[in-house]
Amino acid sequence: MTAARVRLFADELTVGASFPFEPYEVTEREILDFAGRWDPQWFHLEPVAARSGPFQGLIASGIQTLAIAQRLSVLAAYGHWQVIAGRELHSLRFRRPVRPGMTLTGAVEITAITPDRPAPGRADRSLVSVAIDLIDSGATDPRGSTVLSGAMDMFVARRSTAS
Amino acid sequence: MTAARVRLFADELTVGASFPFEPYEVTEREILDFAGRWDPQWFHLEPVAARSGPFQGLIASGIQTLAIAQRLSVLAAYGHWQVIAGRELHSLRFRRPVRPGMTLTGAVEITAITPDRPAPGRADRSLVSVAIDLIDSGATDPRGSTVLSGAMDMFVARRSTAS
Repeated sequence: MTAARVRLFADELTVGASFPFEPYEVTEREILDFAGRWDPQWFHLEPVAARSGPFQGLIASGIQTLAIAQRLSVLAAYGHWQVIAGRELHSLRFRRPVRPGMTLTGAVEITAITPDRPAPGRADRSLVSVAIDLIDSGATDPRGSTVLSGAMDMFVARRSTAS
Repeated sequence: MTAARVRLFADELTVGASFPFEPYEVTEREILDFAGRWDPQWFHLEPVAARSGPFQGLIASGIQTLAIAQRLSVLAAYGHWQVIAGRELHSLRFRRPVRPGMTLTGAVEITAITPDRPAPGRADRSLVSVAIDLIDSGATDPRGSTVLSGAMDMFVARRSTAS
Protein backbone atom coordinates (compact mmCIF):
# COMPACT_ATOMS: atom_id res chain seq x y z
CA MET A 1 0.00 0.00 0.00
CA THR A 2 1.47 3.27 -1.10
CA ALA A 3 -1.89 4.98 -1.03
CA ALA A 4 -1.17 6.49 2.40
CA ARG A 5 1.38 8.79 0.73
CA VAL A 6 -1.29 10.54 -1.25
CA ARG A 7 -3.79 10.92 1.59
CA LEU A 8 -4.36 14.50 2.68
CA PHE A 9 -3.55 15.78 6.15
CA ALA A 10 -5.99 17.98 8.07
CA ASP A 11 -3.82 21.00 7.20
CA GLU A 12 -4.51 20.36 3.52
CA LEU A 13 -8.32 20.27 3.85
CA THR A 14 -10.51 23.35 3.38
CA VAL A 15 -13.65 24.43 5.21
CA GLY A 16 -16.47 24.69 2.68
CA ALA A 17 -15.09 22.01 0.36
CA SER A 18 -17.88 19.72 -0.80
CA PHE A 19 -17.47 16.18 -2.14
CA PRO A 20 -20.35 14.89 -4.30
CA PHE A 21 -21.43 11.26 -4.02
CA GLU A 22 -21.59 8.73 -6.81
CA PRO A 23 -25.21 7.52 -7.33
CA TYR A 24 -26.17 4.44 -5.28
CA GLU A 25 -29.13 2.23 -6.15
CA VAL A 26 -31.02 0.68 -3.24
CA THR A 27 -32.37 -2.82 -3.91
CA GLU A 28 -35.02 -4.80 -2.05
CA ARG A 29 -32.50 -7.65 -1.69
CA GLU A 30 -30.04 -5.40 0.13
CA ILE A 31 -32.74 -3.92 2.38
CA LEU A 32 -33.80 -7.44 3.42
CA ASP A 33 -30.20 -8.65 3.92
CA PHE A 34 -29.22 -5.66 6.02
CA ALA A 35 -32.38 -5.79 8.13
CA GLY A 36 -32.04 -9.53 8.77
CA ARG A 37 -28.57 -9.00 10.13
CA TRP A 38 -28.73 -5.64 11.89
CA ASP A 39 -32.27 -4.28 12.25
CA PRO A 40 -34.85 -7.11 12.28
CA GLN A 41 -38.02 -5.02 12.44
CA TRP A 42 -40.95 -6.14 10.27
CA PHE A 43 -41.24 -2.94 8.20
CA HIS A 44 -37.63 -3.51 7.03
CA LEU A 45 -37.95 -7.26 6.65
CA GLU A 46 -41.43 -8.34 5.51
CA PRO A 47 -42.44 -6.90 2.09
CA VAL A 48 -46.02 -8.21 2.22
CA ALA A 49 -46.79 -7.07 5.77
CA ALA A 50 -45.08 -3.71 5.08
CA ARG A 51 -47.59 -3.01 2.27
CA SER A 52 -50.28 -2.47 4.90
CA GLY A 53 -47.85 -0.66 7.23
CA PRO A 54 -47.51 3.09 7.85
CA PHE A 55 -45.35 3.60 4.72
CA GLN A 56 -47.36 1.36 2.34
CA GLY A 57 -44.28 -0.66 1.52
CA LEU A 58 -40.89 -1.86 2.65
CA ILE A 59 -38.48 0.82 3.90
CA ALA A 60 -34.73 0.54 4.53
CA SER A 61 -33.30 0.54 8.03
CA GLY A 62 -32.08 4.00 9.03
CA ILE A 63 -28.81 2.32 10.01
CA GLN A 64 -28.50 0.98 6.44
CA THR A 65 -29.20 4.48 5.10
CA LEU A 66 -26.38 5.74 7.31
CA ALA A 67 -24.12 2.89 6.13
CA ILE A 68 -24.79 3.91 2.50
CA ALA A 69 -23.92 7.53 3.37
CA GLN A 70 -20.71 6.31 5.03
CA ARG A 71 -19.70 4.21 2.01
CA LEU A 72 -20.33 7.12 -0.35
CA SER A 73 -18.46 9.53 1.99
CA VAL A 74 -15.43 7.23 2.21
CA LEU A 75 -15.26 6.86 -1.57
CA ALA A 76 -15.75 10.59 -2.20
CA ALA A 77 -13.71 12.04 0.66
CA TYR A 78 -12.54 10.23 3.84
CA GLY A 79 -10.68 7.54 1.89
CA HIS A 80 -8.40 10.30 0.56
CA TRP A 81 -7.67 11.80 4.00
CA GLN A 82 -5.35 10.79 6.86
CA VAL A 83 -8.30 9.76 9.05
CA ILE A 84 -7.41 8.45 12.54
CA ALA A 85 -10.93 7.61 13.76
CA GLY A 86 -14.51 8.84 13.92
CA ARG A 87 -15.51 10.55 17.15
CA GLU A 88 -19.16 11.57 17.14
CA LEU A 89 -22.31 11.68 15.01
CA HIS A 90 -24.65 14.60 15.68
CA SER A 91 -28.30 15.19 14.88
CA LEU A 92 -28.57 12.43 12.35
CA ARG A 93 -32.09 12.85 11.01
CA PHE A 94 -34.05 10.23 9.08
CA ARG A 95 -36.08 12.68 6.98
CA ARG A 96 -37.81 10.55 4.35
CA PRO A 97 -38.31 6.79 3.94
CA VAL A 98 -35.78 4.99 1.71
CA ARG A 99 -37.46 2.45 -0.57
CA PRO A 100 -36.34 -0.29 -2.98
CA GLY A 101 -35.40 1.11 -6.40
CA MET A 102 -34.39 4.57 -5.16
CA THR A 103 -31.13 6.00 -6.45
CA LEU A 104 -29.40 7.97 -3.69
CA THR A 105 -26.81 10.67 -4.12
CA GLY A 106 -25.75 13.80 -2.22
CA ALA A 107 -22.55 15.18 -0.78
CA VAL A 108 -20.38 15.56 2.30
CA GLU A 109 -19.06 19.04 3.11
CA ILE A 110 -16.32 20.16 5.50
CA THR A 111 -17.84 22.60 8.01
CA ALA A 112 -14.96 23.07 10.50
CA ILE A 113 -11.36 22.05 11.13
CA THR A 114 -10.28 22.44 14.76
CA PRO A 115 -6.70 21.60 15.86
CA ASP A 116 -6.82 19.24 18.86
CA ARG A 117 -4.75 19.72 22.03
CA PRO A 118 -1.28 18.20 21.65
CA ALA A 119 -0.67 15.20 23.93
CA PRO A 120 2.52 13.25 24.74
CA GLY A 121 3.04 10.17 22.56
CA ARG A 122 0.18 11.05 20.23
CA ALA A 123 0.35 12.32 16.66
CA ASP A 124 -0.85 15.88 16.16
CA ARG A 125 -4.41 15.87 14.90
CA SER A 126 -7.41 18.05 14.13
CA LEU A 127 -11.09 17.44 14.61
CA VAL A 128 -12.66 17.67 11.15
CA SER A 129 -16.41 18.30 11.13
CA VAL A 130 -18.53 17.42 8.14
CA ALA A 131 -22.18 17.80 7.14
CA ILE A 132 -23.71 14.85 5.32
CA ASP A 133 -26.69 15.15 3.00
CA LEU A 134 -28.07 12.03 1.32
CA ILE A 135 -30.78 12.69 -1.26
CA ASP A 136 -33.25 10.72 -3.35
CA SER A 137 -32.26 11.68 -6.89
CA GLY A 138 -35.74 10.91 -8.22
CA ALA A 139 -37.67 12.82 -5.56
CA THR A 140 -40.81 14.64 -6.60
CA ASP A 141 -41.98 15.29 -3.04
CA PRO A 142 -42.40 19.03 -2.47
CA ARG A 143 -41.24 18.51 1.13
CA GLY A 144 -37.75 17.88 -0.21
CA SER A 145 -35.43 15.20 -1.47
CA THR A 146 -33.15 14.71 1.55
CA VAL A 147 -33.54 11.25 3.09
CA LEU A 148 -30.75 11.57 5.67
CA SER A 149 -28.92 14.57 7.05
CA GLY A 150 -26.41 14.80 9.82
CA ALA A 151 -23.00 15.85 10.99
CA MET A 152 -19.91 13.92 12.00
CA ASP A 153 -16.64 14.79 13.72
CA MET A 154 -13.54 12.75 13.04
CA PHE A 155 -9.88 12.99 13.97
CA VAL A 156 -7.52 13.55 11.04
CA ALA A 157 -3.70 13.64 11.39
CA ARG A 158 -1.89 16.97 10.92
CA ARG A 159 1.20 17.14 8.81
CA SER A 160 3.20 19.06 11.44
CA THR A 161 4.50 16.01 13.35
CA ALA A 162 4.20 13.39 10.62
CA SER A 163 7.66 12.56 9.33
CA MET B 1 -47.86 -12.70 11.66
CA THR B 2 -49.74 -12.34 14.90
CA ALA B 3 -46.77 -10.85 16.68
CA ALA B 4 -48.11 -7.32 16.19
CA ARG B 5 -50.86 -8.14 18.68
CA VAL B 6 -48.38 -8.49 21.50
CA ARG B 7 -46.32 -5.42 20.65
CA LEU B 8 -46.56 -2.63 23.19
CA PHE B 9 -47.98 0.81 22.42
CA ALA B 10 -46.21 3.98 23.56
CA ASP B 11 -48.82 4.31 26.34
CA GLU B 12 -47.63 1.00 27.75
CA LEU B 13 -43.94 1.97 27.94
CA THR B 14 -42.35 3.51 31.04
CA VAL B 15 -39.69 6.19 31.35
CA GLY B 16 -36.71 4.72 33.19
CA ALA B 17 -37.30 1.17 31.98
CA SER B 18 -34.00 -0.40 30.93
CA PHE B 19 -33.57 -3.36 28.57
CA PRO B 20 -30.28 -5.26 28.91
CA PHE B 21 -28.55 -6.62 25.80
CA GLU B 22 -27.59 -10.21 25.12
CA PRO B 23 -23.79 -10.54 24.76
CA TYR B 24 -22.48 -10.14 21.18
CA GLU B 25 -19.07 -11.38 20.09
CA VAL B 26 -17.26 -9.32 17.48
CA THR B 27 -15.18 -11.35 15.01
CA GLU B 28 -12.42 -10.24 12.66
CA ARG B 29 -14.35 -11.83 9.77
CA GLU B 30 -17.40 -9.65 10.47
CA ILE B 31 -15.30 -6.49 10.84
CA LEU B 32 -13.70 -7.14 7.43
CA ASP B 33 -17.03 -8.00 5.75
CA PHE B 34 -18.80 -4.92 7.11
CA ALA B 35 -15.92 -2.59 6.24
CA GLY B 36 -15.60 -3.95 2.71
CA ARG B 37 -19.24 -3.21 2.07
CA TRP B 38 -19.92 -0.02 4.03
CA ASP B 39 -16.78 1.63 5.38
CA PRO B 40 -13.72 0.75 3.26
CA GLN B 41 -11.04 2.52 5.29
CA TRP B 42 -7.71 0.69 5.76
CA PHE B 43 -7.83 0.57 9.58
CA HIS B 44 -11.11 -1.40 9.33
CA LEU B 45 -10.02 -3.51 6.38
CA GLU B 46 -6.30 -4.34 6.41
CA PRO B 47 -5.23 -6.33 9.51
CA VAL B 48 -1.50 -6.17 8.74
CA ALA B 49 -1.36 -2.45 7.95
CA ALA B 50 -3.59 -1.72 10.97
CA ARG B 51 -0.98 -3.27 13.29
CA SER B 52 1.26 -0.28 12.70
CA GLY B 53 -1.70 2.14 12.76
CA PRO B 54 -2.84 4.46 15.56
CA PHE B 55 -4.70 1.64 17.38
CA GLN B 56 -2.04 -1.09 16.94
CA GLY B 57 -4.58 -3.38 15.32
CA LEU B 58 -7.78 -3.67 13.35
CA ILE B 59 -10.79 -1.75 14.70
CA ALA B 60 -14.45 -2.08 13.74
CA SER B 61 -16.24 0.63 11.77
CA GLY B 62 -18.20 2.94 14.05
CA ILE B 63 -21.18 2.31 11.76
CA GLN B 64 -20.83 -1.44 12.43
CA THR B 65 -20.68 -0.72 16.17
CA LEU B 66 -23.91 1.24 15.79
CA ALA B 67 -25.43 -1.61 13.73
CA ILE B 68 -24.57 -4.06 16.55
CA ALA B 69 -26.22 -1.71 19.08
CA GLN B 70 -29.30 -1.50 16.83
CA ARG B 71 -29.55 -5.29 16.51
CA LEU B 72 -29.25 -5.75 20.27
CA SER B 73 -31.78 -2.94 20.90
CA VAL B 74 -34.33 -4.47 18.50
CA LEU B 75 -33.99 -7.90 20.12
CA ALA B 76 -34.17 -6.50 23.67
CA ALA B 77 -36.75 -3.75 23.19
CA TYR B 78 -37.91 -2.16 19.89
CA GLY B 79 -38.99 -5.51 18.42
CA HIS B 80 -41.58 -5.71 21.19
CA TRP B 81 -42.94 -2.21 20.59
CA GLN B 82 -45.33 -0.70 18.00
CA VAL B 83 -42.50 1.21 16.32
CA ILE B 84 -43.49 3.35 13.30
CA ALA B 85 -40.04 4.66 12.36
CA GLY B 86 -36.82 6.08 13.73
CA ARG B 87 -36.52 9.85 13.59
CA GLU B 88 -33.13 11.05 14.88
CA LEU B 89 -29.86 9.90 16.41
CA HIS B 90 -28.22 12.37 18.80
CA SER B 91 -24.68 12.69 20.11
CA LEU B 92 -23.60 9.23 19.11
CA ARG B 93 -20.10 8.97 20.55
CA PHE B 94 -17.48 6.41 19.54
CA ARG B 95 -15.73 6.22 22.93
CA ARG B 96 -13.33 3.30 22.67
CA PRO B 97 -12.10 1.18 19.74
CA VAL B 98 -13.97 -2.08 19.09
CA ARG B 99 -11.59 -4.94 18.30
CA PRO B 100 -11.90 -8.55 17.10
CA GLY B 101 -12.69 -10.93 19.97
CA MET B 102 -14.49 -8.37 22.14
CA THR B 103 -17.82 -9.39 23.67
CA LEU B 104 -20.18 -6.42 23.71
CA THR B 105 -23.18 -5.96 25.95
CA GLY B 106 -25.02 -3.00 27.51
CA ALA B 107 -28.58 -1.72 27.59
CA VAL B 108 -31.11 0.65 26.09
CA GLU B 109 -33.14 2.81 28.47
CA ILE B 110 -36.29 4.87 27.88
CA THR B 111 -35.56 8.49 28.81
CA ALA B 112 -38.72 10.27 27.61
CA ILE B 113 -42.13 9.61 26.03
CA THR B 114 -43.65 12.67 24.36
CA PRO B 115 -47.08 12.52 22.68
CA ASP B 116 -46.84 13.92 19.15
CA ARG B 117 -49.28 16.44 17.66
CA PRO B 118 -52.33 14.70 16.20
CA ALA B 119 -52.61 15.05 12.41
CA PRO B 120 -55.40 14.16 9.98
CA GLY B 121 -55.08 10.70 8.44
CA ARG B 122 -52.20 9.71 10.69
CA ALA B 123 -52.26 7.28 13.60
CA ASP B 124 -51.70 8.83 17.03
CA ARG B 125 -48.10 8.43 18.05
CA SER B 126 -45.52 9.41 20.64
CA LEU B 127 -41.87 10.24 20.27
CA VAL B 128 -40.02 7.72 22.45
CA SER B 129 -36.47 8.75 23.39
CA VAL B 130 -33.91 6.17 24.43
CA ALA B 131 -30.32 6.22 25.67
CA ILE B 132 -28.06 3.50 24.27
CA ASP B 133 -24.94 2.27 26.06
CA LEU B 134 -22.82 -0.43 24.42
CA ILE B 135 -20.01 -1.76 26.61
CA ASP B 136 -17.00 -4.04 26.30
CA SER B 137 -17.77 -6.76 28.83
CA GLY B 138 -14.09 -7.63 29.25
CA ALA B 139 -12.87 -4.06 29.68
CA THR B 140 -10.04 -3.45 32.14
CA ASP B 141 -9.42 0.11 30.98
CA PRO B 142 -9.77 2.51 33.93
CA ARG B 143 -11.20 5.11 31.51
CA GLY B 144 -14.33 2.99 31.27
CA SER B 145 -15.93 0.17 29.38
CA THR B 146 -18.39 2.06 27.14
CA VAL B 147 -17.52 1.74 23.44
CA LEU B 148 -20.58 3.55 22.08
CA SER B 149 -23.11 5.85 23.71
CA GLY B 150 -25.90 7.85 22.20
CA ALA B 151 -29.56 8.68 22.11
CA MET B 152 -32.30 7.99 19.61
CA ASP B 153 -35.85 9.24 19.10
CA MET B 154 -38.41 7.08 17.37
CA PHE B 155 -42.13 7.28 16.69
CA VAL B 156 -44.21 4.61 18.42
CA ALA B 157 -47.98 4.22 17.91
CA ARG B 158 -50.33 5.11 20.78
CA ARG B 159 -53.16 2.80 21.69
CA SER B 160 -55.72 5.59 21.77
CA THR B 161 -56.68 5.53 18.06
CA ALA B 162 -55.54 2.00 17.21
CA SER B 163 -58.60 -0.17 16.74
